[in-house]
Amino acid sequence: MEYVTGVSKKETVEISEILSGDFEGKQVKVNGAVHTIRDMGEVAFVILRKREGLLQCVFEEGKTKFDLKELKEASTIEVEGTVRAEHRAPNGFEVRLDTIRVLSEPAEQLPFAISKWKLQTTLETNLDHRAIALRNVRERAKFRIQEGVVRGFRDFLYSEGFTEIHTPKIGAKSAEGGANLFRLEYFHRPAVLQQSPQFYKQMMVGVFDRVFETAPVFRAEKHNTKRHLNEYTSLDFEMGYIDGFEDIMAMETGFLQYTMKFLERDYAKELKMLGVTLPNVEQIPAVRFDEAKQKVAEKYHRQIRNPYDLEPEEEALIGQYYKEECGADFVFVTHYPSKKRPFYAMDDPADPTYTLSFDLLYHGLEITTGGQRIHDYQMLLDKIEKRGMTTEGMEQYLAVFKYGMPPHGGLGIGLERLTMKLVGEDNVRETTLFPRDLSRLEP
Amino acid sequence: MEYVTGVSKKETVEISEILSGDFEGKQVKVNGAVHTIRDMGEVAFVILRKREGLLQCVFEEGKTKFDLKELKEASTIEVEGTVRAEHRAPNGFEVRLDTIRVLSEPAEQLPFAISKWKLQTTLETNLDHRAIALRNVRERAKFRIQEGVVRGFRDFLYSEGFTEIHTPKIGAKSAEGGANLFRLEYFHRPAVLQQSPQFYKQMMVGVFDRVFETAPVFRAEKHNTKRHLNEYTSLDFEMGYIDGFEDIMAMETGFLQYTMKFLERDYAKELKMLGVTLPNVEQIPAVRFDEAKQKVAEKYHRQIRNPYDLEPEEEALIGQYYKEECGADFVFVTHYPSKKRPFYAMDDPADPTYTLSFDLLYHGLEITTGGQRIHDYQMLLDKIEKRGMTTEGMEQYLAVFKYGMPPHGGLGIGLERLTMKLVGEDNVRETTLFPRDLSRLEP
Repeated sequence: MEYVTGVSKKETVEISEILSGDFEGKQVKVNGAVHTIRDMGEVAFVILRKREGLLQCVFEEGKTKFDLKELKEASTIEVEGTVRAEHRAPNGFEVRLDTIRVLSEPAEQLPFAISKWKLQTTLETNLDHRAIALRNVRERAKFRIQEGVVRGFRDFLYSEGFTEIHTPKIGAKSAEGGANLFRLEYFHRPAVLQQSPQFYKQMMVGVFDRVFETAPVFRAEKHNTKRHLNEYTSLDFEMGYIDGFEDIMAMETGFLQYTMKFLERDYAKELKMLGVTLPNVEQIPAVRFDEAKQKVAEKYHRQIRNPYDLEPEEEALIGQYYKEECGADFVFVTHYPSKKRPFYAMDDPADPTYTLSFDLLYHGLEITTGGQRIHDYQMLLDKIEKRGMTTEGMEQYLAVFKYGMPPHGGLGIGLERLTMKLVGEDNVRETTLFPRDLSRLEP
Repeated sequence: MEYVTGVSKKETVEISEILSGDFEGKQVKVNGAVHTIRDMGEVAFVILRKREGLLQCVFEEGKTKFDLKELKEASTIEVEGTVRAEHRAPNGFEVRLDTIRVLSEPAEQLPFAISKWKLQTTLETNLDHRAIALRNVRERAKFRIQEGVVRGFRDFLYSEGFTEIHTPKIGAKSAEGGANLFRLEYFHRPAVLQQSPQFYKQMMVGVFDRVFETAPVFRAEKHNTKRHLNEYTSLDFEMGYIDGFEDIMAMETGFLQYTMKFLERDYAKELKMLGVTLPNVEQIPAVRFDEAKQKVAEKYHRQIRNPYDLEPEEEALIGQYYKEECGADFVFVTHYPSKKRPFYAMDDPADPTYTLSFDLLYHGLEITTGGQRIHDYQMLLDKIEKRGMTTEGMEQYLAVFKYGMPPHGGLGIGLERLTMKLVGEDNVRETTLFPRDLSRLEP
């Protein structure tokens, strides 16, 4: 009988092992992709690309048992050689090659140079050849940082007693309703793709008190901007037994504080590569919606055109205002007008024109919408009626309120937008692995 | 200026804090849902349900400042009282109530008793009232264990150098193609929902060497069985620089070993509640497809009807065989027939009728399909041609092979199936939060 007993150590070593210094002067086996070859005549530098970074390997004519002419960029190889400290090599170590064994070869030359420090293509070309463009080490570094953000979100929420859930993306009805839904046929029944896990995460507050999900959401919006996508990853949480929506903002601030420390510790290499300065999240100013509008109108001499809406330019100016006034990278804008929020938002008892809700702006861009939700069954029915909406198809959602729900609230964070602002990009497609927009359905 | 500075400690305490013993004899504030009320006359037991479990609170006539008649099951409340050690109370502690404050009230009585140890409803009723049924502590415990499995998967793979990715679920084309696709209109273009992240995770092997994703997949299969769903959570990984598909099986075994230990340590309460005995994953037998068929045919006196297919009954018998012969809970079945695997599967050079692939069976149920993939561009084109398929729409997928890919392979694990087998259920709907099947699109 043959048995599989788990992962055993391979003969090949990783870059981090080489950089530890333990292998200096020793013979090692390493594999990787040929990132670039610099032929200097007697010697050639073969730069290997691996998940942990780049490794300089030195080919020596007459010593390395291989014909350099046979080696192509984008081949994958396994090499053997001796580790030497070399202060001119990136990271201070290189491998002097004895042998090269080719594992795989490309059929054609790369369509553009991915080994440049900064990829010199248009965004269009980058996205058309996405899987190739991402082989550039700075391009891929953005997605390592994105990983760190998601890990930070989950790890922080686990530690705060949240349970992770997986809710369905195909449904009969969606939380916000309206025209922005992708529709499909589900075994001869009309169905939609969920715009958010809103209904489900609220239902699950009655089960686990605190829940979160990190999953795709779908919006059939016909926006063609630098900050909109039709599919993105939403970091959602919902928590019960809150004293007010301030608890939600506190939890988000806690997440940001945890995550910036986590990135600093575990993703330092990528932060350095991209020249990222992490934002200040020790304290985040909070300002009322109407007050924020007033402040930027005064300071930047703008007329308030619509007192119940925030234009993108106003958001940008609010960001600018708080950067200038108190050095803040983030600002919570609270008490959004009721008519701009979904039916389930809790109106402010002090003035029901406004809601107990907030957006979080990061350098003037909305990256989060959140707030307290209505938990009383009758209040929810009344608001649905007042809006002229129907309860049809919402029976199961409404049932959780009928059978008792704690005061609760939550938020949704756009992962790609948050990553974009973190790494200093200005188009959300730059920090989306394979973006979906009005014109892009591939790759 | 108002600032949000992060999460601060609440006045209310959690069950784990009470059970630590630190609060014995002390006054505490606790909140939760009224799970059940047992009125004994002079005293009443008010059982609070919280995310960490149940807490016995003792209402004493004349002492507790509240009219018990006002208290409803499924209300949420905040209470104040004194912690007492009481060996008859669940977990050894109870709270003697001074005051009760109602936070929210249900509009109607629950449709069925959720406070019973085992929920006594049909699966149909359970799923029709899913968000209510899950308030039963054993029902919800299954999803805590599910959380543990996902965490185990991610944490183990992070430690093995994998990068987490988020790939699009709407696309122009899907990996397996065929009739089992949900179709939708994407801004006047035909689109599909992804059956698996197969193409994307392979593309990303060229970027990060090792990648994984935990996300929904969609299958428009018209199966109506206990083990099929039309939407489920797939735990996928793909890794480069493998020496063979055995590396994939080793990595999966490592994941299972790590995760069982993790569940044992961090989810012991839920395991105990559900009476789960964790499976043996120290060593997992591996047997060839044809050999497995032969073995069960001989031992259980079955005729082999189709040498190139494995019927569900045969899978069950293979599970039984290895349980009986060597006490194994899992078994890898390797070298599936090429005609039963997708075009991208690597054929066995020793006999191209078979592939370098495997399924993992857990007590006779397939929970994983995996294997080595073709990494050579020309080999891939040849196989596509041999199958009479078209490369149309696959240009971007094929490009990564054209521009060089390491030898690689990977797998996909059905999260709900794995959870179902772990907790000893026999219908995958039992371990799916909100199942989607031929007839169920709600809640």
